[in-house]
Amino acid sequence: MSSFLDFKNKFENKISKHDSRKNTNRFADIVGLPDSVKVKKNTIHLAGGTPYETLFPFKKIDVEYRNSPGKLGEKDPSGSETIEKQKSFSIPLYKEHENQSDISTAFQYQYSNGSSELLAKTKKIVEALNMPGYKGWDTVMTSGSSDSMNKTFALLVDDETTVLCEEFTYPNVFHNCSYHGGTPVPLKMHVTDDKTKQGINIEYLKEFLEAFETNYPGKKKKIVLYTICTGHNPTALTESYEKRKQIYELCKNHGVFIIEDDPYGYLQLPKFDKTNPLVNAYDESVTLESFVKDLLVPSYITIDTEGIVLRMETFSKVVSPGLRLGFIVGNSYFIKRLSNISNMTNRNPAGSSQAIVNNLLDTLSTDYKALNPDAKWIDGWLDWCMKIAGTYTKRRNILFKAIYESEAYKKHLFTLLEPSCGMFASIVVNLKPEYIAVIDSKVKGQDKINKIKRAMDYLLCCLLEAGTVVILGYKMTVSKDFSMERATFLRITFAKASSENEFVKGAKGLSDGFETFFNEYMTENERWNLLPTGLEGM
Amino acid sequence: MSSFLDFKNKFENKISKHDSRKNTNRFADIVGLPDSVKVKKNTIHLAGGTPYETLFPFKKIDVEYRNSPGKLGEKDPSGSETIEKQKSFSIPLYKEHENQSDISTAFQYQYSNGSSELLAKTKKIVEALNMPGYKGWDTVMTSGSSDSMNKTFALLVDDETTVLCEEFTYPNVFHNCSYHGGTPVPLKMHVTDDKTKQGINIEYLKEFLEAFETNYPGKKKKIVLYTICTGHNPTALTESYEKRKQIYELCKNHGVFIIEDDPYGYLQLPKFDKTNPLVNAYDESVTLESFVKDLLVPSYITIDTEGIVLRMETFSKVVSPGLRLGFIVGNSYFIKRLSNISNMTNRNPAGSSQAIVNNLLDTLSTDYKALNPDAKWIDGWLDWCMKIAGTYTKRRNILFKAIYESEAYKKHLFTLLEPSCGMFASIVVNLKPEYIAVIDSKVKGQDKINKIKRAMDYLLCCLLEAGTVVILGYKMTVSKDFSMERATFLRITFAKASSENEFVKGAKGLSDGFETFFNEYMTENERWNLLPTGLEGM
Repeated sequence: MSSFLDFKNKFENKISKHDSRKNTNRFADIVGLPDSVKVKKNTIHLAGGTPYETLFPFKKIDVEYRNSPGKLGEKDPSGSETIEKQKSFSIPLYKEHENQSDISTAFQYQYSNGSSELLAKTKKIVEALNMPGYKGWDTVMTSGSSDSMNKTFALLVDDETTVLCEEFTYPNVFHNCSYHGGTPVPLKMHVTDDKTKQGINIEYLKEFLEAFETNYPGKKKKIVLYTICTGHNPTALTESYEKRKQIYELCKNHGVFIIEDDPYGYLQLPKFDKTNPLVNAYDESVTLESFVKDLLVPSYITIDTEGIVLRMETFSKVVSPGLRLGFIVGNSYFIKRLSNISNMTNRNPAGSSQAIVNNLLDTLSTDYKALNPDAKWIDGWLDWCMKIAGTYTKRRNILFKAIYESEAYKKHLFTLLEPSCGMFASIVVNLKPEYIAVIDSKVKGQDKINKIKRAMDYLLCCLLEAGTVVILGYKMTVSKDFSMERATFLRITFAKASSENEFVKGAKGLSDGFETFFNEYMTENERWNLLPTGLEGM
Repeated sequence: MSSFLDFKNKFENKISKHDSRKNTNRFADIVGLPDSVKVKKNTIHLAGGTPYETLFPFKKIDVEYRNSPGKLGEKDPSGSETIEKQKSFSIPLYKEHENQSDISTAFQYQYSNGSSELLAKTKKIVEALNMPGYKGWDTVMTSGSSDSMNKTFALLVDDETTVLCEEFTYPNVFHNCSYHGGTPVPLKMHVTDDKTKQGINIEYLKEFLEAFETNYPGKKKKIVLYTICTGHNPTALTESYEKRKQIYELCKNHGVFIIEDDPYGYLQLPKFDKTNPLVNAYDESVTLESFVKDLLVPSYITIDTEGIVLRMETFSKVVSPGLRLGFIVGNSYFIKRLSNISNMTNRNPAGSSQAIVNNLLDTLSTDYKALNPDAKWIDGWLDWCMKIAGTYTKRRNILFKAIYESEAYKKHLFTLLEPSCGMFASIVVNLKPEYIAVIDSKVKGQDKINKIKRAMDYLLCCLLEAGTVVILGYKMTVSKDFSMERATFLRITFAKASSENEFVKGAKGLSDGFETFFNEYMTENERWNLLPTGLEGM
């Protein structure tokens, strides 16, 4: 099981009806030519409508880059405050060496799967960090992970498909699933600090899969698992490698495809130390080797022996989101079909973004090698990823320190859930029992849901008045009814603040908002006449 | 009829079932807030997962540009041969003036409809050249015209929709139409030099629309017209303004939406002068004013009073295709829904491309104003478009001169169809009557189709041996059966050659291939044992 044809035979009746309908011929291809036709060498192409490259208004692009992230609070990082001297790399009109992107190629029409030089690099990244457990895998470039999700769903999801996802997830997941006709179904999660347990509730998943035929008689067992298993959004939890192996085994046995969305994987956060809140392991003990071996969690695709996993990576979080650039790893048949979807829809990701990232990666590698002559190509990229992870760790430390020092925390009004990875953290609200006590036993379930929602909405109003904007956990549920009891949390981020002071102010607003909420809620001091169902439209 | 709500009420039951199913809420939006909640000014955002801009590895991007296209045959346009001195514009980390794109915004997450500064420019372009005939229009950025087509089809096409298109067209059109479940239906065309007549056969369209209920009883009259009406691909013909008015009237009366795809519109080619083949009107008489007034043909949207036209423009042909950047103009309700499709799928076009084009447009404008103090903002852009059109005119002249001087042309083996616009031209093969004479009258229609295909395929083999690659016209038909009798042409391009010599060699190959074909075909000298149906799989 390793060739394109093997995978085609195995999977071609498993893809969506929509995708099966797709024509994949390229009209400019010439086929069926007799062998005896002696096509002249160096033919003159009067065929394709590709403008000649000197008609592009660009001659050369220079990118002034940094190989260390800017410091928090640094006002003008291009100014004199920076110690780093100006460094730059180019995108020339014509390439100066083989692996470089140039304008004549990157700004021209190109194949929908992406530029060859960047595709080669994605393969190096996969080989170094997440080698699939089978032969015959491939990669395809996409316009970022939203694009990847839309395409993997277009490939695998139709009106017969059930898409399992974490009960809390990025809302575009279930919207996009429905858009393709599929039925999103939430999986219960363990939202806990326990690293061996956190993430998908395996017992729940097992029962769901085993009882599928009984519970949904007549429904096709055509199931896809969509999971953000590393630095899960919104909870920031990570599925352990042991749990991944169990979940993979279940999926394999029940014919379930796994779509692993991993935008945050490189942003590993070492354990927060309350007694030394500003200690940053990245400044002390983490090395390239330990980063890869001890911190990064191997992908589902490393366990995959069947070609049932599609892994999605992106340059959004570690380089920048505006590039709209990501890639997918999977079996060669699926990758070919995904590239065909691109060919028929939005085509390749922008050549400008591909060229910038391709030449950046080579430059980071060269810089790193200059200091570490024995380094491998990948080390320059990993070094940058580690520096970014270190920066997020620093940001987390500053925010967490401020939160732990706040009045509301000291009064036990909430619990801060430790994020393992990524840029988010969850704050679980310690709602008083009377806030959610059920009175009308006839409508017990709905009554409790409404009560939780109203309390969380009131809290949001308090936080907005106190000047801190957060995301309510229930806004990221596949089904409020299913998950509201576990949705008593807020999502916060440490990605965006520009200075330490902003974090301190954010924590202060958080604390003030919580205090107001606990002082006013369900007392005569309630100031807003919220409906029993909370804010309308939320 | 001008507000979003007017258009929504009018059109919301006309969009595709697929699109109606789309959720358009943004999860981070807070709704239903009581007025009495006093949201603090300068709130601290702990909500969205947007990395801070100094975590991007880019500090500044410099683009060395040209404001005149490179000369044909110029070897290294960045070398000393160019008279033009080096000019560059920047994308700084933080913007230096209001309309400039910067890294902190362009490389960040942004709204799916595109960056505000570039959207503002698309509006200026529309206002200057193709002002819609109603109020309440809007624009949305896309990742190029393939992306635009995919999204306009996603909006308007489902399994009940009939998509009318020119019988010869870009094949992705009918593939994408089928992908969305629609039925592509070819419209007969007049493929002729007569400028008042060329393009869609209006009588045929009229009859089709009037007889729809009779011919397709039970089928919903849900019709979209997809048209490349300016520099049509592959024929390079242009629908006259008079014809556009008649077609619009028909569409309006029959509830047909018009999708106008206009990638080539700026590449207007003045009439070719056989006696002075190298005369280029752009070097002589064309001015900015006459370019706009006499050469550019106004879009369907200028005639539109109802909001039924969606016009698609792209920067692919006039700036560069690798940017994957285009835009759509239409009524504000459709534009909002198109932007929602982006939000759910591939999001905004790459910020890198948007920033490069935005700052390029401003730079071209500034350059032009320096020499022409009274110029409007748009003039710098139009000046560049004119220069590109002039370059294509020069390329056409060189290729046509070589073709008209060729042996095969002098022997009347083919007719060269004059392109009005774009980068393509059609060569109609003067097939001998005996090549396509029908013998078996029982299968007359199919027999003739096969005979034409076999002859064209044999010609292709001859051309490949002679070293010139072309596109056979029938490869770009919606239906071979419907159009084969009018598909006795080749599409050639003058976009890609790097030198005059390449054009001369291309024309020589063309001529040699034709001569071989007419010498061998249906004689004892036929060398390839082609099937009665020609090449298999074509």
